[in-house]
Amino acid sequence: MSSVVEDTTQWVDESLMHRRGIAGGKVGKTHHLTEDVQGKFHYTIGPYSDSVLEIDPGDRVVVETRDAFDGLIKSESDSPSQLLRMPFLNPQNGPIIVRGAEKGDVLAVYIESMTTRGENPTGTCCMIPEFGALTGTEYTAMLNDPLPEKVRRIPLDENNIYWSERNVLKYRPHIGTLSVSPEIDSINSLTPDQHGGNMDLPDMGPGSVTYLPIRAPGARLFIGDAHASQGDGEVCGTAVEYPSITTIRVDLIKQWPIDWPRFENEEMIMAIGSARPLEDATRIAYRELIRWMVSDYDYDQWDAYMMLSQCGKVRLGNFVDPKYTVGAGAIKKIIER
Amino acid sequence: MSSVVEDTTQWVDESLMHRRGIAGGKVGKTHHLTEDVQGKFHYTIGPYSDSVLEIDPGDRVVVETRDAFDGLIKSESDSPSQLLRMPFLNPQNGPIIVRGAEKGDVLAVYIESMTTRGENPTGTCCMIPEFGALTGTEYTAMLNDPLPEKVRRIPLDENNIYWSERNVLKYRPHIGTLSVSPEIDSINSLTPDQHGGNMDLPDMGPGSVTYLPIRAPGARLFIGDAHASQGDGEVCGTAVEYPSITTIRVDLIKQWPIDWPRFENEEMIMAIGSARPLEDATRIAYRELIRWMVSDYDYDQWDAYMMLSQCGKVRLGNFVDPKYTVGAGAIKKIIER
Amino acid sequence: MSSVVEDTTQWVDESLMHRRGIAGGKVGKTHHLTEDVQGKFHYTIGPYSDSVLEIDPGDRVVVETRDAFDGLIKSESDSPSQLLRMPFLNPQNGPIIVRGAEKGDVLAVYIESMTTRGENPTGTCCMIPEFGALTGTEYTAMLNDPLPEKVRRIPLDENNIYWSERNVLKYRPHIGTLSVSPEIDSINSLTPDQHGGNMDLPDMGPGSVTYLPIRAPGARLFIGDAHASQGDGEVCGTAVEYPSITTIRVDLIKQWPIDWPRFENEEMIMAIGSARPLEDATRIAYRELIRWMVSDYDYDQWDAYMMLSQCGKVRLGNFVDPKYTVGAGAIKKIIER
Amino acid sequence: MSSVVEDTTQWVDESLMHRRGIAGGKVGKTHHLTEDVQGKFHYTIGPYSDSVLEIDPGDRVVVETRDAFDGLIKSESDSPSQLLRMPFLNPQNGPIIVRGAEKGDVLAVYIESMTTRGENPTGTCCMIPEFGALTGTEYTAMLNDPLPEKVRRIPLDENNIYWSERNVLKYRPHIGTLSVSPEIDSINSLTPDQHGGNMDLPDMGPGSVTYLPIRAPGARLFIGDAHASQGDGEVCGTAVEYPSITTIRVDLIKQWPIDWPRFENEEMIMAIGSARPLEDATRIAYRELIRWMVSDYDYDQWDAYMMLSQCGKVRLGNFVDPKYTVGAGAIKKIIER
Repeated sequence: MSSVVEDTTQWVDESLMHRRGIAGGKVGKTHHLTEDVQGKFHYTIGPYSDSVLEIDPGDRVVVETRDAFDGLIKSESDSPSQLLRMPFLNPQNGPIIVRGAEKGDVLAVYIESMTTRGENPTGTCCMIPEFGALTGTEYTAMLNDPLPEKVRRIPLDENNIYWSERNVLKYRPHIGTLSVSPEIDSINSLTPDQHGGNMDLPDMGPGSVTYLPIRAPGARLFIGDAHASQGDGEVCGTAVEYPSITTIRVDLIKQWPIDWPRFENEEMIMAIGSARPLEDATRIAYRELIRWMVSDYDYDQWDAYMMLSQCGKVRLGNFVDPKYTVGAGAIKKIIER
Repeated sequence: MSSVVEDTTQWVDESLMHRRGIAGGKVGKTHHLTEDVQGKFHYTIGPYSDSVLEIDPGDRVVVETRDAFDGLIKSESDSPSQLLRMPFLNPQNGPIIVRGAEKGDVLAVYIESMTTRGENPTGTCCMIPEFGALTGTEYTAMLNDPLPEKVRRIPLDENNIYWSERNVLKYRPHIGTLSVSPEIDSINSLTPDQHGGNMDLPDMGPGSVTYLPIRAPGARLFIGDAHASQGDGEVCGTAVEYPSITTIRVDLIKQWPIDWPRFENEEMIMAIGSARPLEDATRIAYRELIRWMVSDYDYDQWDAYMMLSQCGKVRLGNFVDPKYTVGAGAIKKIIER
Repeated sequence: MSSVVEDTTQWVDESLMHRRGIAGGKVGKTHHLTEDVQGKFHYTIGPYSDSVLEIDPGDRVVVETRDAFDGLIKSESDSPSQLLRMPFLNPQNGPIIVRGAEKGDVLAVYIESMTTRGENPTGTCCMIPEFGALTGTEYTAMLNDPLPEKVRRIPLDENNIYWSERNVLKYRPHIGTLSVSPEIDSINSLTPDQHGGNMDLPDMGPGSVTYLPIRAPGARLFIGDAHASQGDGEVCGTAVEYPSITTIRVDLIKQWPIDWPRFENEEMIMAIGSARPLEDATRIAYRELIRWMVSDYDYDQWDAYMMLSQCGKVRLGNFVDPKYTVGAGAIKKIIER
Repeated sequence: MSSVVEDTTQWVDESLMHRRGIAGGKVGKTHHLTEDVQGKFHYTIGPYSDSVLEIDPGDRVVVETRDAFDGLIKSESDSPSQLLRMPFLNPQNGPIIVRGAEKGDVLAVYIESMTTRGENPTGTCCMIPEFGALTGTEYTAMLNDPLPEKVRRIPLDENNIYWSERNVLKYRPHIGTLSVSPEIDSINSLTPDQHGGNMDLPDMGPGSVTYLPIRAPGARLFIGDAHASQGDGEVCGTAVEYPSITTIRVDLIKQWPIDWPRFENEEMIMAIGSARPLEDATRIAYRELIRWMVSDYDYDQWDAYMMLSQCGKVRLGNFVDPKYTVGAGAIKKIIER
């Protein structure tokens, strides 16, 4: 599997998305959510903004995403603290209305591909004052002087990220922020929670399906924050942030009453929790995974609990956002027996 | 000082509210925000709802608040889990527009009095499944069976709370939720944060002034969640929740760039932080208090830090909400020298 | 009540110590644990050190404590990071063997008085690199530069602490570290836990009784770390640390199976928890308080839980030690009815 | 590479252990630490116990470990809460004295192999009341009823773990608890910290090297707690605990001043942190990894910080012990360029 495009003939036909979705794997119309169509980007995920697109289950959307800095950081000599203005960070495309979506349903989002935009594609990574895991922040309030501001502008293509003369990293794209609207709240695009949001899970790239619990009519899908690569935890606070063309396919699973996002790829199923402290995010993820194994894979809850103690997988999305994100996974080959 | 009504001739003339506010202690018009005027109550604090009242700095507002359960729990045999429907909890009056309020200003809210409403005033306290400090919750996810549901309906008057045959508690009212609108988010009324929100600080009763950092035009004041009494931490998740008549006086302090709510009563000044884990809420509160002492009381920051290590006061609001709230205080008689 | 000496004719006759202890309030022999008798001080609390004194229940011990810096910091120009050598901090007197003490019993320690030692009594407060609540530490690891080192040497007497020209604080002494030995572990004197340890509770001064769950034969009492004053949380990491003469009276309550330290003064009973994060310390304290109200005050556990939600008191000892300490209290006048 | 035995001709010749150790990869004498030689097992890691063996750097030790329950749980109908007696859990072999080891040095422990002991090898997994990640515990104190006790006895061999009729897991052994002695503390074998301890890292199996910072003369190596398999986080509190024959080779790296354990296998280097809350363990691990890259791999600290934000690996050991353990790793092929 290329990291850029997932071959849709593959595993996804066996996914819950294809087995339970209304479209059932049948691909519908392709929509283009360009910057022009998008117009104003969004910095808060909620029910109060005007939709930019309306689609049917099964439809494909080709999305032009901006980088998390809204393209404001253009050079390594730029100052993030002067250019970035909270809360106008992490611009989101959308909302996209999915016809027929109602509270209690689940939106399945399959990522087909993530490619670069424009000439000389470049990613941006910053150290922003009072942001990141190894510095005092607005919440973990300290009296220490902030860390220095740093900007890295990194050339990349769909194979590699040219980090430095010494280090070349693989292009392993994923989408950092993927959301449906809360019922009545509108949550800034930096915060992950039950609606999805800024989960920053490196697994959420081409070939993966994310399941989001719908709370508002039409689901109101928001998407943005493409990362060309990200380490576990996103320790300095930012990934290789870049403008992308992200192609998704969307389906609707009716009446699947889940509380938190779930996830599936060829290898595993994963439940996702977002909370502070980090152990609470991990607790949520494991509890939801156990519930999933009980309801869909015919496990006794104590057997699932004890067996995951021997074979469960944990993925740390980030521990830098206002809430931290953890995925707890089970290998399909093990649990599907 | 009665717990019900604060004599306005007292300390408040020396408060920051009177010394720096536009109205400067001059009392303006009195408005009545009855249930009828309010109409629909709000469950999310943000910029997207229609205002119910528009006032000038210095004005007084007499507010009819509902209890946190929206009055749905009427008997000790009621089942909270059947009657309460998330996220429609903790109804808020407002938003009240304060003329002239802009981002960067601070709203000062002085609580003049909190009295009961109607015949046979009664408070309600519940144990709600997966809510409270000594049980697994949606965030601190556990597999244990939930605690039993319990409802207590407690007769009260403006002197006492008749908890049980054995125990009579004092009527010590305070307002649990006091907020201005975030800039672009809309935050459910259960969550405290920089905008104020569900802070549950027992000190926030008659005779106190709360300072809220304004982010949206007109400030957009929300108020609700009266408690007839509450212990430190609100350990079971709910206080003696009751419908109140809460009378406030509001003023505007222009261009006071604070990040978190602050508080003042006759005895102390206090900075307020809300976060998880609880040490982060406490860190925020102490850092903001130090900043306050540096900017307004002429302290060197290291002297303030070291002296508060000898005489700082900590108040735990709650450790049951989606974020926990802590106040860090300094005795005026000490720091005003 | 003076802050220095508690009049023993007072409330303590009604304490659990006097009502349940073997000595029953009868005062025994007075021992003098001078520096000479002590010899080598201890930096770890456990079963492996030689005892310095053996006493009977009811006996009084007059203890010469050192300050937490072992007296090494003598001037405001001293450098803590050069003078202090971990883990040799917070020297403890003891261990004192209490005859008849066995695992499952409880040691009651009543503090009669805390006075200064020597001419020109002086307290010491430091900012130590990577120590304190508002800085990165060994555990909350940051990349920020450490805060500056600071030393304050503060003249004091048994009325006042002469903090600065501007600020005089009251002399409100308490003992920071009070412990019995764990069963097989030996825990450094900086860490509080079930054995007591470095709890730093400002209430633990003259006139208070602390109850410690005995795990090792003879109880093995350690004591040290006198504070002339301390704010809630000990935010900069250190209090007004001073060498004291601390006079205690000790009794033994047989077969009282408690898991965590408890506390009593004239006004309230309090259970004490030590853990990270801070909410866990608070949870422990409240759960133990509920258990206490159920076993000794005839409360139903749900009634205790709900009533403490209205009238519980929380005291923050410190949030700077390897574990944080919280007390959860109930007013005797309320619960003793 | 078999999961049971690592071929010593492989990568380990390039390890820090072989490049910097006194023995430099030369294999010394083989010692047998049988149950008979061991005699009494230990439940606390410290400087106060008598050594059972004295070895030279380069020596091999074949250790007969007991399971974490001391072999007390023999049948699925046994009751852990009746058979297990805190703090006598997680028995450790040792202490082994390493000649020449001094404070400031590092002990390198290479695991050569982990095999089963005796006929019909069987692992044990339990749900123990108030223990595990998805239940209230002694620290995360709740009022909920505890989860049911459960015992699983699982047949296994050096290929597979026969979990149930439905599920067979791979035999992927690792050592749960590996320690050197603290300087003056003696820490129960359930707790991980700077000395190593109960880290429960699934990577710590055959073919790996662990580096432990020596604090006490002779290092005083303790080892125990073999797991035939363990999931990330050890969510129910226990792994497939089994008695093993674990063969290690030990070397001494002089004067390597590290604060926390480090780790190396063929693929990556990893720093290990243990703390609560879980984000603090992760912070420690990443900070130590950055320090390692700066001192040994010639990275600028900000470049290391930002690059790990793109390619760092996080391994969750456990989030059930008194402290939680996290490893932060960097792929050698990336950083060794």
